[in-house]
Amino acid sequence: MSRTVYLNGSFVPLEEARIPIMDRGFLFADGIYEVSAVLDGRLVDNEAHLARLDRSLGEIGIRNPYPTAEWIRLETELVARNDLKEGLVYMQVTRGVAERDFAFPPADTPPSVVMFTQTKSIRGNPLAETGAKVITVEDLRWKRRDIKSVALLAQVLAKQAAAAAGVAEAWMVEDGSVTEGSSSTAFIVTTDRRIVTRPLSTALLPGITRAAVLHLAAEANLTVEERLFSVEEAYAASEAFYTSASAFVMPVVSLDGRPIGAGQPGPLTRRLRELYIAMAKGA
Amino acid sequence: MSRTVYLNGSFVPLEEARIPIMDRGFLFADGIYEVSAVLDGRLVDNEAHLARLDRSLGEIGIRNPYPTAEWIRLETELVARNDLKEGLVYMQVTRGVAERDFAFPPADTPPSVVMFTQTKSIRGNPLAETGAKVITVEDLRWKRRDIKSVALLAQVLAKQAAAAAGVAEAWMVEDGSVTEGSSSTAFIVTTDRRIVTRPLSTALLPGITRAAVLHLAAEANLTVEERLFSVEEAYAASEAFYTSASAFVMPVVSLDGRPIGAGQPGPLTRRLRELYIAMAKGA
Repeated sequence: MSRTVYLNGSFVPLEEARIPIMDRGFLFADGIYEVSAVLDGRLVDNEAHLARLDRSLGEIGIRNPYPTAEWIRLETELVARNDLKEGLVYMQVTRGVAERDFAFPPADTPPSVVMFTQTKSIRGNPLAETGAKVITVEDLRWKRRDIKSVALLAQVLAKQAAAAAGVAEAWMVEDGSVTEGSSSTAFIVTTDRRIVTRPLSTALLPGITRAAVLHLAAEANLTVEERLFSVEEAYAASEAFYTSASAFVMPVVSLDGRPIGAGQPGPLTRRLRELYIAMAKGA
Repeated sequence: MSRTVYLNGSFVPLEEARIPIMDRGFLFADGIYEVSAVLDGRLVDNEAHLARLDRSLGEIGIRNPYPTAEWIRLETELVARNDLKEGLVYMQVTRGVAERDFAFPPADTPPSVVMFTQTKSIRGNPLAETGAKVITVEDLRWKRRDIKSVALLAQVLAKQAAAAAGVAEAWMVEDGSVTEGSSSTAFIVTTDRRIVTRPLSTALLPGITRAAVLHLAAEANLTVEERLFSVEEAYAASEAFYTSASAFVMPVVSLDGRPIGAGQPGPLTRRLRELYIAMAKGA
């Protein structure tokens, strides 16, 4: 069955969904995206994703084309039309179609809006049982990593390096510290059971799943430290994991070929994954 | 008259030129571009642009879809079909259309190819007579600026800052030194008549017009220094200019509102512009 996607006001078959070559998303990566998970047919933590979408658009001066309620209506209709039970809703907004010129087009240029679904096993992802292997790569990205833009070439190269190494994810490193994963937030658990992740700044994306996991950890009286951690510290960690809308909480069992802790998903990581899934199911 | 553009093997009207939303150029900025100038209906220094296109594609593992001779044939046909006398040919190659996933799609995924022309007054650009005003902005870009990718959001924001300030270009600054313009290479001329521009590295694009100008300067026995220069040094320069395929050699008459030299296009800059135009006309 063909997927139905959303394009600038219409629901159309994927095969018919095309954008003009002069779209600034295509020519300049001049656009923003978001991904919300779907579990049991329901959107997970979606309003936080929509708030981040609005914030990212504002940071680069693109008008948010819809109020939150309209986004939710469109996402919900897209999920229903595709009978999506588990997977992702992808949303992208660009600065629209205009003759190629670096500077912004006239302010009344309508943004382009694209949405589509992907079916994906998230809760039952077998990788969550075995744990993910991760490599480190140099962080090549630009300086405003807090903006979720489609200028993703550095992340593409990082993820491809992971794929070429036969592992699931690449953690990006700058000045000896782990910034984040190519499409996830990086966490370690120290041998004295402290959950460590980098504090928010322009150097990383404010992860929605990251925020939810920190909240759940605090509720469960676990100790969280928001601070930089080095690659060496990660090698020596008791546990490690990463979070994202599509991975939820994913155990990391090796980094650059070195086993993390016992080389198996750790108990704190498993607990946080369970807490997150319980939260998501209740969403 | 509608423009004719080139899209994946066909010459089509611009209005019909659309790409699938799953094109990796649109979703990931996973593509490379080039721009060659056209003067008197002829391509300027085009083989150097095609060599850089090939090099950029190789750096991110996209197969160059055409040999040089085929690129030239397609560009020449596009120029002829649009009866272009003066302006630009834009070329873009992306990693093609595939289900959204950061890692590369199967190796046999065909790259997408887009080419279009823009009519533009280059030789007679009035800005070359009055000189361009420039501001400085922070260089937000990623670390592989030697790759001419379409992940241009930082450059878009820089050029928009220039437009908002009512000036023609923004020079990007990192650690107190000018890296390059948002879409050009930055040069200063010191009070002792040395032409200074940053040496090539991964921190800037290997400008094709930059290389031609350095060659012409050497032929004219002018002194060139390839080294970093600071913003303060630029403020105190005798002359300044920038180069690009579409600007050729453009005099800079003020930086951040401070006049450069006499606040008029400088004599060495004028001479280099004339030498470049003579070279381009003879191409």
